[in-house]
Amino acid sequence: MSRLLIALGGNALGNNVTEQMERLKEVALPIADLIEKGHEIIITHGNGPQVGMIHDAMEKENMPLPECTAMSQGYIGYHLQNALRAELAKRNIVKEVVALVTQVVVDENDVAFNHPQKPIGPFLSFEEAEALKVSKNYEVIEDSGRGYRRVVPSPKPQDIVEKSSVKVLLENGHIVITVGGGGIPVIRNGMEYLGAEGVIDKDYSSGKLAELVDCDYIFMLTGVDRIAINYGQKNQKDLARMSTEEANTYIEEGHFAPGSMLPKVVTGIRFAESGKGRKAIIGSLEKTNEALVGDSGTIIYSKEIE
Amino acid sequence: MSRLLIALGGNALGNNVTEQMERLKEVALPIADLIEKGHEIIITHGNGPQVGMIHDAMEKENMPLPECTAMSQGYIGYHLQNALRAELAKRNIVKEVVALVTQVVVDENDVAFNHPQKPIGPFLSFEEAEALKVSKNYEVIEDSGRGYRRVVPSPKPQDIVEKSSVKVLLENGHIVITVGGGGIPVIRNGMEYLGAEGVIDKDYSSGKLAELVDCDYIFMLTGVDRIAINYGQKNQKDLARMSTEEANTYIEEGHFAPGSMLPKVVTGIRFAESGKGRKAIIGSLEKTNEALVGDSGTIIYSKEIE
Repeated sequence: MSRLLIALGGNALGNNVTEQMERLKEVALPIADLIEKGHEIIITHGNGPQVGMIHDAMEKENMPLPECTAMSQGYIGYHLQNALRAELAKRNIVKEVVALVTQVVVDENDVAFNHPQKPIGPFLSFEEAEALKVSKNYEVIEDSGRGYRRVVPSPKPQDIVEKSSVKVLLENGHIVITVGGGGIPVIRNGMEYLGAEGVIDKDYSSGKLAELVDCDYIFMLTGVDRIAINYGQKNQKDLARMSTEEANTYIEEGHFAPGSMLPKVVTGIRFAESGKGRKAIIGSLEKTNEALVGDSGTIIYSKEIE
Repeated sequence: MSRLLIALGGNALGNNVTEQMERLKEVALPIADLIEKGHEIIITHGNGPQVGMIHDAMEKENMPLPECTAMSQGYIGYHLQNALRAELAKRNIVKEVVALVTQVVVDENDVAFNHPQKPIGPFLSFEEAEALKVSKNYEVIEDSGRGYRRVVPSPKPQDIVEKSSVKVLLENGHIVITVGGGGIPVIRNGMEYLGAEGVIDKDYSSGKLAELVDCDYIFMLTGVDRIAINYGQKNQKDLARMSTEEANTYIEEGHFAPGSMLPKVVTGIRFAESGKGRKAIIGSLEKTNEALVGDSGTIIYSKEIE
């Protein structure tokens, strides 16, 4: 029995209510398999498309980004706990599943606040993107060859405010959904936390939480079964295992796309090096179970402390 | 040391982000007093104005009402846990505070689905209300002499899906924010729960939860210090104590307004009669501490089982 954190991508959740409910029924299947095997499970998720949608819709209300991430935690958390409960019920598994509103501490001097890099909201045409730059003063980038997207600051997570609640629930056998959308970014201001205008990368927050609550594995789910070097080229090579040393070399060689595979690999390295027996796995949702036994996915491990 | 559930009204939370943050700083004060005295605390809250605001804003996305309540749980839960943490930090009290995304089971045959009665969203003029009836097919009523409001079905709570998580956190000394907006209404459909188009009364859900997790007190906060009979008339009489028998008589005599004081009194009666030593208090936020010792508020108790 291991303690696992499973990180779901926001892009994998679909673009509207109906799609999200359908996708989460699929997501529930391999997670229920892991629960059935007796593992302790934390689920985290991105919210890029969803927080952009909510922020656009709530424009008239001047709803700040952190509040929109809080709303996305409610919206996605509800569907996720509902879908997983249904799948567990079908299997006669009695397990509690609950989503926590979760704040994540960031540094107010994080350089990210001056360099917006995290894409949120829908993919846009060049013309739509240019119009939003003018009308709403949005920063916009070209994203992964799939179109243009709004970008916002993505500060690095320093601490998870509600980590003790996550831990207590886990220790009592509950499945915990947390740090949704990377968590609500807050900065310390004396005795209080203030919301910060940004969206944290959910892989970084997931890694931070996995360290803090002493997970054995962090699974980062993505669109491919395995990490590759020379991706998309003739000499593409899929990797079943990668030591943290190798991973660092591949990063230096520029194999992993920023905002996509790079944060996963960086998170994996850091987590694998954070304690004995800790491993990161990057792979596809469909092959989660295979990945746990090494038959799919890419395992990142530390040679030093294995 | 007692286990207390404190139910906050959605109307007391202000009408926008800034107001909500300011109001919740005030709300945090008496709650922190209770925590300082060593009580175990559950906090619940309404979401009438907020869920209406979110539902209106998300119209283009066809966001259903239960998803909007889920979003309001994130939005209000975030501000509430943040405000209470800040107040506790100022007092050097180390306590976890966490909001749970919470589903509440309702009966698909609840008569409420055919009789929308729960006001949500802002107060409207007669003309605005008439326009919404036509343009969006909303049902609208005149609310408490303060204007017109949209109304939606308000089915009765049957069970709290995440009650075990609430209990585990409480037993570990965490402050739990739950059943926000009365909870996300769901109906049973075989092995799964489906969202139901309505907004549950937060007092009824609070009473149900308080029974299920074995609270000693349920505090329902409202705009007045004490319940009165003959309210607003020459012979108005404020009540410090009220047996469940007396309360039932006053209900029959029509002293309590539906959608306002009536659900609080009904919840109070039911809770007081649900177990030995259980009492309900209805009073104002400002006098929460006085109310706990009988110097303010109206206590509802059961003669039979006291």
